[in-house]
Amino acid sequence: MENFEVIEGNITSPKGFLASGVFAGIKKAKKDFALIYSEKKANAAALFTTNKVKAAPVLLDMEKIKNGEAQAIVANSGNANACTGQKGYEDACSMAFMAAEKLNIDKDDVLVCSTGVIGVTLPMDKIAKGIELAVQNLSRDGGKEAAEAILTTDTFTKEIAVKFNIKGVEVKIGGIAKGSGMISPNMATMLSFITTDADISKSALNKALKDTVKRSYNMISVDGDMSTNDTVIMLANGVAGNPTIDEGTKEYQVFYNALLYVNKHLAKQIAKDGEGATKFMEVNVVNAPTEDDAILASKSVVNSNLVKTAIFGEDANWGRIIAAVGYSGANFSQDSVDIYLKSNKGLIKVCENGGYVPFSEDKAKEILSEKEISIVVDFNAGKYEALAWGCDFSYDYVKINGSYRT
Amino acid sequence: MENFEVIEGNITSPKGFLASGVFAGIKKAKKDFALIYSEKKANAAALFTTNKVKAAPVLLDMEKIKNGEAQAIVANSGNANACTGQKGYEDACSMAFMAAEKLNIDKDDVLVCSTGVIGVTLPMDKIAKGIELAVQNLSRDGGKEAAEAILTTDTFTKEIAVKFNIKGVEVKIGGIAKGSGMISPNMATMLSFITTDADISKSALNKALKDTVKRSYNMISVDGDMSTNDTVIMLANGVAGNPTIDEGTKEYQVFYNALLYVNKHLAKQIAKDGEGATKFMEVNVVNAPTEDDAILASKSVVNSNLVKTAIFGEDANWGRIIAAVGYSGANFSQDSVDIYLKSNKGLIKVCENGGYVPFSEDKAKEILSEKEISIVVDFNAGKYEALAWGCDFSYDYVKINGSYRT
Repeated sequence: MENFEVIEGNITSPKGFLASGVFAGIKKAKKDFALIYSEKKANAAALFTTNKVKAAPVLLDMEKIKNGEAQAIVANSGNANACTGQKGYEDACSMAFMAAEKLNIDKDDVLVCSTGVIGVTLPMDKIAKGIELAVQNLSRDGGKEAAEAILTTDTFTKEIAVKFNIKGVEVKIGGIAKGSGMISPNMATMLSFITTDADISKSALNKALKDTVKRSYNMISVDGDMSTNDTVIMLANGVAGNPTIDEGTKEYQVFYNALLYVNKHLAKQIAKDGEGATKFMEVNVVNAPTEDDAILASKSVVNSNLVKTAIFGEDANWGRIIAAVGYSGANFSQDSVDIYLKSNKGLIKVCENGGYVPFSEDKAKEILSEKEISIVVDFNAGKYEALAWGCDFSYDYVKINGSYRT
Repeated sequence: MENFEVIEGNITSPKGFLASGVFAGIKKAKKDFALIYSEKKANAAALFTTNKVKAAPVLLDMEKIKNGEAQAIVANSGNANACTGQKGYEDACSMAFMAAEKLNIDKDDVLVCSTGVIGVTLPMDKIAKGIELAVQNLSRDGGKEAAEAILTTDTFTKEIAVKFNIKGVEVKIGGIAKGSGMISPNMATMLSFITTDADISKSALNKALKDTVKRSYNMISVDGDMSTNDTVIMLANGVAGNPTIDEGTKEYQVFYNALLYVNKHLAKQIAKDGEGATKFMEVNVVNAPTEDDAILASKSVVNSNLVKTAIFGEDANWGRIIAAVGYSGANFSQDSVDIYLKSNKGLIKVCENGGYVPFSEDKAKEILSEKEISIVVDFNAGKYEALAWGCDFSYDYVKINGSYRT
């Protein structure tokens, strides 16, 4: 039973948020500049890539987010502003400064994101044009356009909104994200922007974001490569007017559940839209001794090239699944592991007590012929579980990435 | 300056070793059963997969190797005898027992290896036939046939032999290996068998094998998946009659250098024959603060799907290289990293001080058009280096692994 309802919408569904997405000429033809703006200064939390090589906007935002406040996010696609040295950092600062001027707010309240090719400095004239156009186009319906403007090799926009009640007051959470490539299961979101009109304390917002990211974006993998630009930012402007949500309360739990749903939805959308993906893959490790063991094992399976190619080939090669569990670092006993394959076409056990169990190859093939495949690994050793999401590995993945820059 | 000479040959080049490779019907048509036999009981050392899911022969050999002695190795391809439970373990014991009977040696001196599909029990009638045929066919020229018999999706045999002097006595080291898929950079050899007629103490043999494996098999990656069956076994029968080699001596260093060359050669052959590989890739991290930092960084780059697809596409996408260094866990400063691409067509710098440096895309394309590509990452921060080897990621990798079982 969920205490929230999914509604049509995105980051501009919560009250007090405006957004826009425009074409500034950084990409060849598609929208490439997004702006998210809160009418009121918001509490803000963010998580960033753990890659040692961090893009300039990540380095800048890590400073800006320290006071737990922000009012706007400017983001461009088509250029990551990564490995661009001092010039890149200054460009990121300029982006924030120019946007602050146009919005008439403090530059320290503007967060900056970039995504695209690494190692090329930003075309600042186009960035300036993007900011100008984006501010002009800010609107209460602009969330969808912002979602479009942050895409790179993505094939569809990722958006969601939910509503729920906090002590009788309706509040909303909305989100947009982009993913597609360089998606690894350690702070793996690429860009994700979440807004809420809920009034929530800075510490509660931080904790909710951190704990939900662990169980959403950090559980997806497209290719095992960790980006230099991964960023999740959440703004909470309090415009809904509910009593402030604090940690350890029933209201916090309601907020947490709704936020987890939003982040899981966006994470799964990113996995579904993985480069070259033809199938969506969910790995569910159940009855593990600890949640961390379940997380390690499920991420290892979802990240295995051999599992991914087997799913692409619709081959019930469970030996690769148990091998990936084996090198995951998870604590488990091989002799008690059962493995199941599941889809809309049914469920089949393919491994029992860590070994061979007779099963119908025809039935397995039928199950694997679906677009959404679930792999269930039962440790039979505890009460914890984890879910990880990814996609198969296709010829198109190789094609897309063999010629990304050229 | 090397103190050894590469000669034509393999595991039967050292004195006192016989081998054979025969067809027992485990695979459809090709040779599938190998036997290596030392006329004299040998000192033995071995390293095994660190996967928690270990095949039956690995579990058995881990026991057998404890006394540091062995006289024969029996190995089949076409079936990994992994995830086969108690029955699988008993089958591995039977393999050793049957071979010992036919060879008239102690069963505890027979090591057992299997490679192939996971999760299917061994066809013991065919194994028995393989042992019978293999013993009948043992010969001083049988090394090449043994090398053939251990192959699975490999496209060529991996063999080498070297000779050198220990206090005026000529000694030899020979080796064969198989690889191709499920090759990950943590005890990544698949099967490798090394023989020597040198007289060397058990402890020196152990140390030499362990230290050379770290710098050879453990530095290759085809797909990042770690097998359940990876095994390196080395037998030293002392038939050459040299004074016993001990640790810490000049002779040990000569032996170590020759063994390192043998293991590096076989490891590189495995990387060159990676499933679907069209290009061989060497990653050399230089001027690192420690060897471990250089190892972490070079393995991360060689293992990156995005680097591998870029090399396949002949695209000088250095951003992916520095990103892979960034998430490797290596200690380095981004601002001092330089990156070069190298091949028979020349050398080009593509990244300076962690950022963009102007370079000719045409020259880069020309360099990357070669079959053997070297990526050099200079940390400019110390005196240590590491070499890692792998291959590109092609359409054929997906094809081979989309339909491996079926």
